[in-house]
Amino acid sequence: MNVLIVHAHPEPKSFTAALCEQAVETLQAQGHQVRVSDLYGMNWNPVASAEDFCFRENPEYLVYALEQRRNSQKQTLAADIQQELDKLLWANLLILNFPIFWFSTPAILKGWIDRVLVSGLCYGGKRFYDLGGLSGKKALVTVTLGGREHMFGEHAIHGCLEDMLRPLLRGTLAYVGLDVLKPFVGWHVPYITAEARQEVLGNYRQRLESIDADVPIQYPRLNQFDDRLYPLDPIPVKPQARAL
Amino acid sequence: MNVLIVHAHPEPKSFTAALCEQAVETLQAQGHQVRVSDLYGMNWNPVASAEDFCFRENPEYLVYALEQRRNSQKQTLAADIQQELDKLLWANLLILNFPIFWFSTPAILKGWIDRVLVSGLCYGGKRFYDLGGLSGKKALVTVTLGGREHMFGEHAIHGCLEDMLRPLLRGTLAYVGLDVLKPFVGWHVPYITAEARQEVLGNYRQRLESIDADVPIQYPRLNQFDDRLYPLDPIPVKPQARAL
Repeated sequence: MNVLIVHAHPEPKSFTAALCEQAVETLQAQGHQVRVSDLYGMNWNPVASAEDFCFRENPEYLVYALEQRRNSQKQTLAADIQQELDKLLWANLLILNFPIFWFSTPAILKGWIDRVLVSGLCYGGKRFYDLGGLSGKKALVTVTLGGREHMFGEHAIHGCLEDMLRPLLRGTLAYVGLDVLKPFVGWHVPYITAEARQEVLGNYRQRLESIDADVPIQYPRLNQFDDRLYPLDPIPVKPQARAL
Repeated sequence: MNVLIVHAHPEPKSFTAALCEQAVETLQAQGHQVRVSDLYGMNWNPVASAEDFCFRENPEYLVYALEQRRNSQKQTLAADIQQELDKLLWANLLILNFPIFWFSTPAILKGWIDRVLVSGLCYGGKRFYDLGGLSGKKALVTVTLGGREHMFGEHAIHGCLEDMLRPLLRGTLAYVGLDVLKPFVGWHVPYITAEARQEVLGNYRQRLESIDADVPIQYPRLNQFDDRLYPLDPIPVKPQARAL
């Protein structure tokens, strides 16, 4: 496999960085090709703006998705976006590796999503969910957080972590057609011992060694909906998909 | 009331900007004080980093939340953060006004959240949800999106919009103690007529004119959980809170 790891943590010595290194090492040992986009190290610009386009379909009024479509067709996207897009199209597996900030991605990674997952190539019109532009590729979300595992779940204080991550797992990764694997979570990371951290790294190594066999989360499929995207069957998609 | 509108759209002539202007006009006409943080206009930096702190509790290793606590106590946060924090503490009502990018905030606004909602002042330890540092204030999320209303809901292709917005509504705004009002949504905005847009603006004006009477969404309360944050009662919090 070709693997792209998009890593986002402001501290180069962080445990999140150690997870990134663990993934590179483990996946390379398995014979995979691995590339890393270290967003803080690259000084990645997360702000979607008119400057992302060398050509303007409409120079008077910015419709960001429209300009994404035209500029990706013409290969006139800003160079930093095109480089990341090329890596993404090269990859069979995308790993997003980050600390949870406010139950979602740090802004620098949100801006990678906003700018790189361009309309036209990655999605557009009726090309989303199972028909998304990146279908056939997989995605894994690897996160660290301060909370403990018992704070997440059906009756827990924050509800299910997968519900908090829904806009990312379903609304972004599944939306563009990626097969989304169950997230890997490093719980309570700022507060655990060095030994406990080694155990997390070991669990991550094991998870990655058998990542080929992982079964993706099930999400809605376009053939469950009519042309105007009304549900064909009033019974919603599978319970598992609803929970996520 | 004192109202802070945090507005984030890359096109100054956008309909989202018109919603922001509508809010300023309506709220001022009601006698409220209104301030606007136009993040694109301010060239807001959304990237949380070591540069956010004039003082470092630990110069060798960045724990972002720890430095937020120390620097907010010492008034040594970066000037751009302190300015926004002062506006936030001044406000009784916070309005986040933005176009949905990937079922969540544009990165520039996510970075306002990451950097301004500082640990210590806004939350910390057991000070979250109803005990959060900003309790007593209200929050309203005003969004525009391309999708149509029937694409969201229990049986709809994307599920409920409130579920997609959960990390923002519950995991961020309710987490810091804000009373979260029902979002105001401008559906299908890029595709509707000028007349239909005027109707949305009119609906928004009406909503804002009676915003004082709005009943907040119900979320978990800390007294439903024990000291270690295990649920006291295995029956989860109210159905409405679960759905969100």
